[in-house]
Amino acid sequence: MNSFGRLFKVDIFGESHGLGVGVSIDGCPAGIPVDADDLEPDLSRRRAGAKGTTPRKEADLPEIMSGVFKGKTTGAPVTIFFRNTNIQSGDYENLVASPRPGHADFTGHKKFGGFNDYRGGGHFSARLTVGIVAAGVLAKKILKDITIESKLIEAGGSTNIDEALDKAMADQNSIGGIVECRVKGLPVGLGEPFWDSVESLISHAVFAIPATKGIEFGSGFYSAKMTGFVHNDSIIDDNGTTESNYSGGINGGITNGNELVFRMATKPTSSIAKAQKTMNFEKGMVDELEIKGRHDACVALRVPPILEAITAIVLADLMLLEQKSNRIYL
Amino acid sequence: MNSFGRLFKVDIFGESHGLGVGVSIDGCPAGIPVDADDLEPDLSRRRAGAKGTTPRKEADLPEIMSGVFKGKTTGAPVTIFFRNTNIQSGDYENLVASPRPGHADFTGHKKFGGFNDYRGGGHFSARLTVGIVAAGVLAKKILKDITIESKLIEAGGSTNIDEALDKAMADQNSIGGIVECRVKGLPVGLGEPFWDSVESLISHAVFAIPATKGIEFGSGFYSAKMTGFVHNDSIIDDNGTTESNYSGGINGGITNGNELVFRMATKPTSSIAKAQKTMNFEKGMVDELEIKGRHDACVALRVPPILEAITAIVLADLMLLEQKSNRIYL
Amino acid sequence: MNSFGRLFKVDIFGESHGLGVGVSIDGCPAGIPVDADDLEPDLSRRRAGAKGTTPRKEADLPEIMSGVFKGKTTGAPVTIFFRNTNIQSGDYENLVASPRPGHADFTGHKKFGGFNDYRGGGHFSARLTVGIVAAGVLAKKILKDITIESKLIEAGGSTNIDEALDKAMADQNSIGGIVECRVKGLPVGLGEPFWDSVESLISHAVFAIPATKGIEFGSGFYSAKMTGFVHNDSIIDDNGTTESNYSGGINGGITNGNELVFRMATKPTSSIAKAQKTMNFEKGMVDELEIKGRHDACVALRVPPILEAITAIVLADLMLLEQKSNRIYL
Amino acid sequence: MNSFGRLFKVDIFGESHGLGVGVSIDGCPAGIPVDADDLEPDLSRRRAGAKGTTPRKEADLPEIMSGVFKGKTTGAPVTIFFRNTNIQSGDYENLVASPRPGHADFTGHKKFGGFNDYRGGGHFSARLTVGIVAAGVLAKKILKDITIESKLIEAGGSTNIDEALDKAMADQNSIGGIVECRVKGLPVGLGEPFWDSVESLISHAVFAIPATKGIEFGSGFYSAKMTGFVHNDSIIDDNGTTESNYSGGINGGITNGNELVFRMATKPTSSIAKAQKTMNFEKGMVDELEIKGRHDACVALRVPPILEAITAIVLADLMLLEQKSNRIYL
Repeated sequence: MNSFGRLFKVDIFGESHGLGVGVSIDGCPAGIPVDADDLEPDLSRRRAGAKGTTPRKEADLPEIMSGVFKGKTTGAPVTIFFRNTNIQSGDYENLVASPRPGHADFTGHKKFGGFNDYRGGGHFSARLTVGIVAAGVLAKKILKDITIESKLIEAGGSTNIDEALDKAMADQNSIGGIVECRVKGLPVGLGEPFWDSVESLISHAVFAIPATKGIEFGSGFYSAKMTGFVHNDSIIDDNGTTESNYSGGINGGITNGNELVFRMATKPTSSIAKAQKTMNFEKGMVDELEIKGRHDACVALRVPPILEAITAIVLADLMLLEQKSNRIYL
Repeated sequence: MNSFGRLFKVDIFGESHGLGVGVSIDGCPAGIPVDADDLEPDLSRRRAGAKGTTPRKEADLPEIMSGVFKGKTTGAPVTIFFRNTNIQSGDYENLVASPRPGHADFTGHKKFGGFNDYRGGGHFSARLTVGIVAAGVLAKKILKDITIESKLIEAGGSTNIDEALDKAMADQNSIGGIVECRVKGLPVGLGEPFWDSVESLISHAVFAIPATKGIEFGSGFYSAKMTGFVHNDSIIDDNGTTESNYSGGINGGITNGNELVFRMATKPTSSIAKAQKTMNFEKGMVDELEIKGRHDACVALRVPPILEAITAIVLADLMLLEQKSNRIYL
Repeated sequence: MNSFGRLFKVDIFGESHGLGVGVSIDGCPAGIPVDADDLEPDLSRRRAGAKGTTPRKEADLPEIMSGVFKGKTTGAPVTIFFRNTNIQSGDYENLVASPRPGHADFTGHKKFGGFNDYRGGGHFSARLTVGIVAAGVLAKKILKDITIESKLIEAGGSTNIDEALDKAMADQNSIGGIVECRVKGLPVGLGEPFWDSVESLISHAVFAIPATKGIEFGSGFYSAKMTGFVHNDSIIDDNGTTESNYSGGINGGITNGNELVFRMATKPTSSIAKAQKTMNFEKGMVDELEIKGRHDACVALRVPPILEAITAIVLADLMLLEQKSNRIYL
Repeated sequence: MNSFGRLFKVDIFGESHGLGVGVSIDGCPAGIPVDADDLEPDLSRRRAGAKGTTPRKEADLPEIMSGVFKGKTTGAPVTIFFRNTNIQSGDYENLVASPRPGHADFTGHKKFGGFNDYRGGGHFSARLTVGIVAAGVLAKKILKDITIESKLIEAGGSTNIDEALDKAMADQNSIGGIVECRVKGLPVGLGEPFWDSVESLISHAVFAIPATKGIEFGSGFYSAKMTGFVHNDSIIDDNGTTESNYSGGINGGITNGNELVFRMATKPTSSIAKAQKTMNFEKGMVDELEIKGRHDACVALRVPPILEAITAIVLADLMLLEQKSNRIYL
């Protein structure tokens, strides 16, 4: 439900236009240095501001509510809260009758019997990912010398992302994108048969990022067109280094010590200014809908730090499971 | 680890060349009629035999060890065991020194300190999926009028699958494939924010199927090339029916009542007869490896019933969570 | 760890002398009316103030941080925070060298490598139970017509509790007590074999209440002295009503529809003003210790509302599991 | 439900008069030597045979179905099955109409809509504990130098247990008892705040043992009559050794390095030969019931090895959580 992870457990709460959004990390080893400044670099990368991102600016000031004492984690749950400050909820009142196509407005309403907080997507909003980024900062500290890097490699079908953005914005439209993630320095042996392969856990968490439509590891979908002879990565030394890396660093669901590589697809932002048609439940007919809120022209632009955080969270959990409890961070 | 699901919980155990493989389903509602004949159709679809599948034939005779009384589930765990009968373990002894590229031989050895059962992949083998298929039969009964259909839509880059197989087999090689799954009749509202979206749970389970390299829902990776105006599925009636179905039947991680559609990529079988090079840990050098075991030329051929079972398991769990406990099946 | 429950999941965070303490409830059905006034009666019963309770007074003002919209739960996590206001942390600095006997000072220090927040017991403090009481209020609403009542039936070995308190306070000492809980109106069938009997789940949660030393159901420890003929509760009608109730309302771990009855023992408060001897780790020798903080002479006095909340939390979870999902509260 | 433990996870399945009973242990470290002979001593202590135990004799021959290769655990789930051999199910047919007082016959029937296997208590039977004892043998190996010892210290209100048994048997009646458990050699620091105190986890598992009515740690219920000054255990050396041990080796839910001590109460066996009265649902009236099955006059006699196994299972799980993953047993 709103909890993910076995030993490094990340709980998400909050709403886009409520008091704020938060995260609580249970099982975080004691002794990790953490303060608001540590969180800022990744929060800042996630924050809106650049071309193609929403005009809604949130300061994302973290309030550390528990689990930190004298600047270090205590071993108790670390809870961090981000108050919402820049809210224009009036924008959303008309969406009750007219659920936005491509959004959770209709499904959220049905699932929760109309009691859901529908303002700005409520609990379904991508704003919730701010807590994930914060948890990711702690996870990255546990991973120490392991480096995780994500970047947007294509948007709107083009690698000239700037151009693709200009076109979408001029048209009051939005575009999707592909984000790649690469992890260096992983040990051999992370991942848990039978159900908790590295791919299983990463994909589970990645599909919690709003707008995700697909994920592939190593050769991914292209592998379906390959032969085994080409696809098999020959091991060439005692450490398990492979000549090629079609496996994306995973065999049998377990890391093999080579670079972990995967890509995910983000659909175009559902909220667009351009007029669309959809059901108006008040009028009982299909009608035109104009969305007045503030939105990203390409939400994939903001995905890389979130994807890194997600990846760090999964890997930190597997590291704690595998090696030593790291109950105390040294 | 080896357990998946919240209310309809599926535990997997066993090894490819040990005594057998099994499954235990905890949380299965009482009163579901079940016997060996019910299991046979899906087990038979998964079984080897057709062109391109391994010469190893297993009868897959289910022994129902617990949880069934007078032909119906009792509410206690349903445990089903399949004894291995057609084993040629001598095939595998040479692989201890020389881990097969693309396989879990190296990672399994490292993870478990050399104590793993390496025969035929041991606990990592696709043979373990026989238990999943059995659990899927029970899950499908819970889903009643919901229909799940999977098929191989492409292999070795071709839709002429027969031809692609002939070529691979002639070359002692293997090929990958793409399997699609479609689910009709789902209610609106399955899926659990924030971490347990329908895509999260399905992808988690799908990546437990050996050889899976990617998964995509609805428009999938293609969505990255689309605009929001085209991608947004307009709602056109009170039930939430949409004009297009780029979402693949899911919004905000929750089923929207339209057809659930997704595809997965299966890599080419790692075990091939054709000679390959890889590290020989005994000799301490890269050497030629010839794999003598019996294998599928295209393991994707056997995936459809497994994918249906996986999908049914996830959806049955979400149905039990969502609607009524179905503690008793009526 | 800090999470309890399967469908009605209660997460606890915070510290006695940090920013505050909180609770987050995941899986709470949508549509439950809740505001600060609803929480006050039980919070007030738990609060200090009466004879024998600590002079530390906390207003316990709940800040509802998420999961409530227009006065009703939304189906998303309900997070409630209570800021600490009445803190005198100077009281605790000397306890770093000299861990209080009977407290978690020594074990908490060792477990978390000295990074624990030691002020007032930190995350081990009974102050954390304020969040449990808040969660209990929501749980009680789910239980509707089921009534839960706890009371202190004995303190310091006497049923004249007032007198026992006077004596303890005059002596700068503390006393233990026994609290009984009775639940009326439960349906037949709550509880989950094999590991999650009603007793298993209740005792699990009850032993999270600081200072608990024992629990017994129905005849409890006295049953060890009885014969089966006397102990067996004869069923006397179609509803399963029993003539006696030595079982305490549970058979085979499952509620039988009769009154649920259990008792727990609370040890005397460990913190006493009276001088004690214990190890002084700074001096490296056993020394005299005087505890200056503010404490309850009989912490059992404050247990009844906490015990009711714990019981409600367990039973609400089992109700959601058993009957219908109650995804929406009607 | 039927699964217990976080890293050392024990799943129970089977029925008293079905094919057999089993256990599956997921998360068991690789490399633990195990064979049927290792299991026999504890299985033998649990087995019937002595005075006061049931005439039903089961050989309890373990069939290791998975997870062991070349005599050592592999890291995959260890599944062990015990076929039932000595069944007289005819004994139980009359109990469908007339549920035995004190048993799960009535509650099991109601909970599972009449689909439960009612023969000999089915899945509720104490026969299921044979799997727990087997899992306990593995857990004890993980605990290495830690010793766990349980014994029956009182039965039928007397410490002359032999005499108490004679009396009960002569009267076709049954008696309860108290079993004590002591654990030596535990490190400081096991247990997980807030909900997973050592007492919480042990009591959770102990109440899964059929017929348990109470549990107390250290001073237990007697603590309610004590003062803090007496109850507080003074620490007297650097290791945390305490002068007294009223805490029973636990402070704040965390082991303190002293002896862990607790006691549990087992009610008298519900099945007695002596005629009783109870509801007959077929006749629609209260009637006399004579139970013809074979039963223990004092089931507490058989509890000690089960209690040791339960304790070992909980502590092994906490050890794996706390110290190092022990993924590989060395």
